[in-house]
Amino acid sequence: MIAGIELGGTKTVVAIGTAKGAILEQCRFPTEAPAETLAYAVDWLRERGTPASIGIGAFGPVGIVPGRENYGSILETTKAGWSRFSLIEPLSTAFPQCKLVLETDVNAAAFGEAKIGVAAGLDDVAYITIGTGIGAGILSGGRLTHGALHSEFGHLKVPRAPGDDFAGVCPFHQDCLEGLASGPAMAARWGRPAHELPNDHPAWEMEAWYLAHGILCLVAIVSPSRVIVGGGVSQAAGFHDRINQILGKIAAGYFPPVLVPHYVVPPALGQDAGISGALLLTAAGL
Amino acid sequence: MIAGIELGGTKTVVAIGTAKGAILEQCRFPTEAPAETLAYAVDWLRERGTPASIGIGAFGPVGIVPGRENYGSILETTKAGWSRFSLIEPLSTAFPQCKLVLETDVNAAAFGEAKIGVAAGLDDVAYITIGTGIGAGILSGGRLTHGALHSEFGHLKVPRAPGDDFAGVCPFHQDCLEGLASGPAMAARWGRPAHELPNDHPAWEMEAWYLAHGILCLVAIVSPSRVIVGGGVSQAAGFHDRINQILGKIAAGYFPPVLVPHYVVPPALGQDAGISGALLLTAAGL
Repeated sequence: MIAGIELGGTKTVVAIGTAKGAILEQCRFPTEAPAETLAYAVDWLRERGTPASIGIGAFGPVGIVPGRENYGSILETTKAGWSRFSLIEPLSTAFPQCKLVLETDVNAAAFGEAKIGVAAGLDDVAYITIGTGIGAGILSGGRLTHGALHSEFGHLKVPRAPGDDFAGVCPFHQDCLEGLASGPAMAARWGRPAHELPNDHPAWEMEAWYLAHGILCLVAIVSPSRVIVGGGVSQAAGFHDRINQILGKIAAGYFPPVLVPHYVVPPALGQDAGISGALLLTAAGL
Repeated sequence: MIAGIELGGTKTVVAIGTAKGAILEQCRFPTEAPAETLAYAVDWLRERGTPASIGIGAFGPVGIVPGRENYGSILETTKAGWSRFSLIEPLSTAFPQCKLVLETDVNAAAFGEAKIGVAAGLDDVAYITIGTGIGAGILSGGRLTHGALHSEFGHLKVPRAPGDDFAGVCPFHQDCLEGLASGPAMAARWGRPAHELPNDHPAWEMEAWYLAHGILCLVAIVSPSRVIVGGGVSQAAGFHDRINQILGKIAAGYFPPVLVPHYVVPPALGQDAGISGALLLTAAGL
């Protein structure tokens, strides 16, 4: 039995499926205290059998580089109770023979889209999610990118959109990309949540402006062949087209082998990108 | 015989040495027209023997991913005569049995510093050079990063330093990082070249401010364990300390497992980083 777990900040998904990313059965439930959340996933899996391997996509900061001291644990976080909680321990205790493969939630989603989604077959792919926060998963040369920690994409700084004097909502940096363009930033700036803003509201042009500048950083640093933008705050009609237009303008013809038409696209797997990616991770020789 | 070639925009270095990066003999000469430049390097090598392998670090844009159509060639460039010139062809014609390993000049320098320089033993390293342009080489998970093209780090956009209204000098983007902080930008902004600006000139605080914002993008995207800053415009005393101070301030405690004291450092190999890296590339299973 092949299993996947997508551990998000607010909801968790556990599934059984195939190592090719097909979901046979899945269950979504709220992310509660750490031990309870993992126990719930373990019980759900036990009722269905004994997994030979589990792919896990987890919110961060999380130690994802095998061999490092912090491997398998949530690192210091403001999310109550989760700091230094080991995700690997309860799973390997419950299923001692099971192979566990751990990644960030956004890396899992990038992997899903790069294997069976909108970027199928590409080796260089970035997946951005815009919701409560802004994160990015990166596949580079066919491998998921780690580094000393992992991408914390939302916390880089971009120029201010012309005329924008909103202070920003990031508790650490105020006006980093996440502080200016996450779901909470949209809600605070415009007085209502993103999903209530009509498609022709100026909010979307500004949102696309900030995302295009963040994506320009990705283009200039890891040079993806395609960038996928998903998450709750990416659903407005025409949003990806707006990003492509602004990105083309600010790139100013400089990246011709990289920037292609429809460079920024929505995910093909929708909200299943993360859990499908988690299933696919079980077959990856990472 | 092991050889290395560092092909820069203005100067070229050819060397013989060891696959561990030791330089036995080297020759520096101006980069002229493409055929002449490669012929000069070939002749110099021929006088010394027949190389079993050559590592090459080349200015970009250049096709560095084996198997792609553009592999081995300089891509469209404003540098007269170099567009679509194959670097591989004259070398494989001259030395048919020779193994050729091609990278960008900054990736070669990053590799050198990560193997035998200031970042020896680290798997996640970025090397930034500030000179005529601004470039970055990136080692991630022990492998040099490519992507659809390769890093064009200098062309991302960062916020404006407080009070700075200099237009920028990048012919494509005006005020990208390179447009605001390269050597020509320094010279245009302050009326004299960087090496004539005293260490206590406000130019250096602003220069460090821009570099810190560029490095924050690297931290947020590829999470290096160490960032090396070299190149002609990095020689002012205390410059790296200034960058570290500003980086610490704008990171605001958010990246504790990544940002360590003396995170940004000068190269240990000095101007030999690129050519030593080119020699080391001959032994890399890239």
